[in-house]
Amino acid sequence: MIRGAIEAARARGYMVLVGETGGDAHLERDLLDAMFDRQVDGVVLATMMTHARAIPVEATRMPTVLLNIEPTDDADYVRVLPDEVAAGAAAARLLVDTGHRRIHLIGVGDDPANAHPFGLAAAQRLSGALSVFAEAGRQIVSARPTVQWLPPEGFRLVSEVLDSGAEVDALLCFNDRLAMGAYQALQERGVRVPEDVSVLSFDDTSFARWLRPGLTTFAFPQRALGRAAADELIDLIERGAAADGSSPPPVAHLVPLPLRMRASVADRT
Amino acid sequence: MIRGAIEAARARGYMVLVGETGGDAHLERDLLDAMFDRQVDGVVLATMMTHARAIPVEATRMPTVLLNIEPTDDADYVRVLPDEVAAGAAAARLLVDTGHRRIHLIGVGDDPANAHPFGLAAAQRLSGALSVFAEAGRQIVSARPTVQWLPPEGFRLVSEVLDSGAEVDALLCFNDRLAMGAYQALQERGVRVPEDVSVLSFDDTSFARWLRPGLTTFAFPQRALGRAAADELIDLIERGAAADGSSPPPVAHLVPLPLRMRASVADRT
Repeated sequence: MIRGAIEAARARGYMVLVGETGGDAHLERDLLDAMFDRQVDGVVLATMMTHARAIPVEATRMPTVLLNIEPTDDADYVRVLPDEVAAGAAAARLLVDTGHRRIHLIGVGDDPANAHPFGLAAAQRLSGALSVFAEAGRQIVSARPTVQWLPPEGFRLVSEVLDSGAEVDALLCFNDRLAMGAYQALQERGVRVPEDVSVLSFDDTSFARWLRPGLTTFAFPQRALGRAAADELIDLIERGAAADGSSPPPVAHLVPLPLRMRASVADRT
Repeated sequence: MIRGAIEAARARGYMVLVGETGGDAHLERDLLDAMFDRQVDGVVLATMMTHARAIPVEATRMPTVLLNIEPTDDADYVRVLPDEVAAGAAAARLLVDTGHRRIHLIGVGDDPANAHPFGLAAAQRLSGALSVFAEAGRQIVSARPTVQWLPPEGFRLVSEVLDSGAEVDALLCFNDRLAMGAYQALQERGVRVPEDVSVLSFDDTSFARWLRPGLTTFAFPQRALGRAAADELIDLIERGAAADGSSPPPVAHLVPLPLRMRASVADRT
């Protein structure tokens, strides 16, 4: 995200300074004060993992864009967000179109309302996927939630799927770390990817291309998000400088998650 | 590194702003100018991968500490560096002490003088390891250099080792990405870690703990490096503020790479 923001800002003659808070709200306010005192033109408030949160009042004193954050109040901010709903729908569409019938979800249950205690990606990916499966008349065979989306949980959940004796055409893993654990569980039992079971995932983490076979996944668009946030902020700054009192309403700028097609999804049509 | 610097700076009442250049020398000079104009107290010049480089003159106008950088000229800077020589020696010592006799090096040849075209870690890890092997009277069975330290190269090099028919007690991989590829090559041939072959590595990348079995590795001390750099810089700033003309000579502050003992190294004594 930082690299994308720097590129977009440079292209328009702006410089980026970064402050990192590690999620500390006091530090965030101190940094906003420091940036304000140093007369920055505007601020992008960003988080690594998409989530809903309150926006500190310090952010209202200067042009501010929210990156990867949904405000919990009604505040009027320009927001730049990954289009997780569309990615979930595209993932389901890919599995349906390639003829997968016995599909298991790894990392979430079957209800977007309580998909995950933190973050928005789980609920959004799930609601996108469920709407496509419903349209296509596909029933999910099983859906296994977990709070930690890490390889040991992926290993455990996929081992459960295999132990259950259920038939499996495809595993839709809700991030690449779960998928890494899925690969391990499949490999340790001699189940081949993608000949026996397809694996599809989200994020395009660095190791996704290194798994064997390479993992097909929807890339979390870090760079494009950063670029869009810088562009939206500079628009805001430059509109402010030429203000006539009539500012356009704040928008939600949705950035797509592009598909990285590798070798983990078979064509079963 | 950034998180460590922020922690150390906060503890002493300082604030950290970060500029990221992606290796662009022009952008680096622009950022140094921008920081200087905004009257920062001092600057830490840092890189992700340890290497030798020239220091831009813009850095000489304010207190500056080099983090993970060796200057190619004689400039008098305080430097904070990972102690790669000691880590290489400790890795070799661990393999010798656990009774490994047929040891293969993955990622480097057997000569530190041309260990790797970029970066200093390769040469330093190698020289530390070779000195311990020599002391212990151990001969390296093979040493396979590669420019890219990524899983596909680890896979290829370890496949070569196995194809060669040479006996293998242990693979000393020069980073975790090579080790990930090593695991894949071993697994695809049914060679067990650590029962048949031990794997030891460097960096403690996020996935090291997720490999099965967990990878024993020397952690690249990102946080401790950042912390040390911030502390050295603040010392420099505060000494400058109370200057009496006699500043102590610049030092190299070496930060150890702690061993993360997991399950990939067997005891063969």
